Amino acid sequence: MGIIVQKYGGSSLADAGKIKNVARRIVARKEQGNEMVVVVSAMGKTTDQLIDLAHELSDAPEDREMDVLMSTGETVSSTLMVMALHAMGHDAISLSGGQAGIRTDKVHRKARILSIKPKRVHAELDRGRVVIVAGFQGLTQDADADITTLGRGGSDTTAVALAAALGGETCEIYTDVEGVYTADPRIVPEARKLDEISYDEMLELASVGAKVMHSRAVEVGGVYNIPILVASSFKEASGTLIHGGVSVEQFKKVRGIAHDLDVAKVTVRHVPDQPGIAAAIFEPLTEAHVSVDTIVQNASEEKLTDLTFTVSRTDLRKALSVIEKTAKEIGARQIVSDEKLGKVSIVGTGMQSAPGYASRMFRTLSDAGINIDMISTSEIRITCIVEEDRVRDAVKALHKAFALDTPE
Amino acid sequence: MGIIVQKYGGSSLADAGKIKNVARRIVARKEQGNEMVVVVSAMGKTTDQLIDLAHELSDAPEDREMDVLMSTGETVSSTLMVMALHAMGHDAISLSGGQAGIRTDKVHRKARILSIKPKRVHAELDRGRVVIVAGFQGLTQDADADITTLGRGGSDTTAVALAAALGGETCEIYTDVEGVYTADPRIVPEARKLDEISYDEMLELASVGAKVMHSRAVEVGGVYNIPILVASSFKEASGTLIHGGVSVEQFKKVRGIAHDLDVAKVTVRHVPDQPGIAAAIFEPLTEAHVSVDTIVQNASEEKLTDLTFTVSRTDLRKALSVIEKTAKEIGARQIVSDEKLGKVSIVGTGMQSAPGYASRMFRTLSDAGINIDMISTSEIRITCIVEEDRVRDAVKALHKAFALDTPE
Repeated sequence: MGIIVQKYGGSSLADAGKIKNVARRIVARKEQGNEMVVVVSAMGKTTDQLIDLAHELSDAPEDREMDVLMSTGETVSSTLMVMALHAMGHDAISLSGGQAGIRTDKVHRKARILSIKPKRVHAELDRGRVVIVAGFQGLTQDADADITTLGRGGSDTTAVALAAALGGETCEIYTDVEGVYTADPRIVPEARKLDEISYDEMLELASVGAKVMHSRAVEVGGVYNIPILVASSFKEASGTLIHGGVSVEQFKKVRGIAHDLDVAKVTVRHVPDQPGIAAAIFEPLTEAHVSVDTIVQNASEEKLTDLTFTVSRTDLRKALSVIEKTAKEIGARQIVSDEKLGKVSIVGTGMQSAPGYASRMFRTLSDAGINIDMISTSEIRITCIVEEDRVRDAVKALHKAFALDTPE
Repeated sequence: MGIIVQKYGGSSLADAGKIKNVARRIVARKEQGNEMVVVVSAMGKTTDQLIDLAHELSDAPEDREMDVLMSTGETVSSTLMVMALHAMGHDAISLSGGQAGIRTDKVHRKARILSIKPKRVHAELDRGRVVIVAGFQGLTQDADADITTLGRGGSDTTAVALAAALGGETCEIYTDVEGVYTADPRIVPEARKLDEISYDEMLELASVGAKVMHSRAVEVGGVYNIPILVASSFKEASGTLIHGGVSVEQFKKVRGIAHDLDVAKVTVRHVPDQPGIAAAIFEPLTEAHVSVDTIVQNASEEKLTDLTFTVSRTDLRKALSVIEKTAKEIGARQIVSDEKLGKVSIVGTGMQSAPGYASRMFRTLSDAGINIDMISTSEIRITCIVEEDRVRDAVKALHKAFALDTPE
């Protein structure tokens, strides 16, 4: 009879009827004797509407104010869920991120959780209440206690981090997909749902574009070893369990194809090839909170090198303004950018140590007439940067080449 | 060069264009060298929409959750106002009621302010910022720090209480009317705007139904002697100044006619006429947070008395359920209620000590064929309870009889 942490996404809370459906699901689990902590996102399109409202008033609304504004979406959902539970005769209480004990750094719109002291959550559970926590939000750790948000998909992080802090048995993420697939089913109709996947594999799938779950949430789950179930809010289907143990039979296999259509590339040409140059380039980007993804460095001429990195398209302008300043300081000659790129990856634990996966990937793309712009690899992933309008063809070809439509 | 506290109502913040207009007004005062603290209500009909949403989920949503829900309306306005000011090149910051230091009791939906420690407000003013405070909301004083709201019109109270706590020079309440009138202009087209009025007169006018301002805000203004300007958010008109000094020429005059269409009456018949009976009846009502307005007690038979009181129509059901229990305990024989009543009052400082006002009021109503159900008087007010559908006629007749259409 442990603590179960659930999280429901915005599409499962889009109107009063859907909120009542979720309330019934919560009650069913509560009546099995579980202590229930439920993290909610903002209803339906609320976050987007709030962003639109902000842009009516300012072209560049300040991050601190955006956080205060956007946090109201989750607050509204949390109280409505409590009202639905009350109407069904169940005691419940809504808590803000701050009341649930979530303290963060001061990086508004992308805050990181620094600590969770869920004293109040425990106290309310001890009173027999269902605790509904507004997702996505926290408070800064200083005396100001300003509201912060954890970035898009941050409610997933709220849920997994709370599960860890509460010593929860599992964290269940309910969303509008039925689980993690071998590829995006909108591109590959034959894509199969995976019953289980490791944290690392999920991280690679999430960070390279499988829009199922926020990757920070998976990281937190991995660090604290909290099993995470990703499943549909609408159907009673089994979902995908993300956990630490990987079966032998699933080791050294490609588990899925991830893709990302939102890739921009920046190349700094003719950088003096000397120690400290990479730091000189990437430190200012970090300070500007630009998330750099793939980095590739190649010698071009003697004592000179070309350095290329990718960012999301929304960060490109900021990245360029930072990098132009840096280029002058370090004496680089030219900056080139391209924002019409995409990314396709094959993912699977232990895959890299097994021979043949990389070459099969490159051969498949070549046979499909797709040019590879950049290559990067990790322990469990091989990624190719290709032209944006060839990404879908690449995903289809790779799904077939690695026989992912065949049951494991 | 003092601190000016302003408050803008929901109709002046109904859309992005209106918010920008208000931002321009704030900037104009700031550029005169004032330190600006601005309290905002929820945009337009937001509060009503949130209430509707709650009622889709529960017939009787819990007060604590309603407070969390409704407070989001003012939070949204506060951040949008800051964004508008930023876009105009002015530094500003939004603060929640709690961040502005407002602590309240735990009576959700009707919380009273217990203390204000506006340390953060001073700190932000010292940084040269305009401080935008979300009105209507506070935090409980205990460790829970739960969100409370101050009741309808509570943003007025936020503004006046903040002005008092900050040592502000004036508090300016901007609303959709141009000031305080001798009567409701929708009923009496000849009604005149008053240039000034005392706290007490305003209290009587507000509490008996002139919907200009929340009466608790006026009380706070009176206690701390903060001059309150009530004026239009849309026009550059002079408004009405509510303050402590009353000119001699305005003493002993009827200043205005107030009315209220929302009156319900409860009569407890044949109450044993003995000490402690009134307390036995009204203490449970107070505990149930029913606001009792006019109280009249009349002997009916020997050792028995009839006790009548009025409440707002929304409180009638709650009042009856409380009073039925009490009636049994004290041995009262019958409870009668009537919810189709209204109230009309003449208001003016020193009026009661001058002869003739009461009789002129009764004669005027009699001549208009309006029956008086109950009478109550205060130092500066005479009130008659009449049938709801005769209230408008009563206001018109009294406005004429006391020559309120003639300039002072």
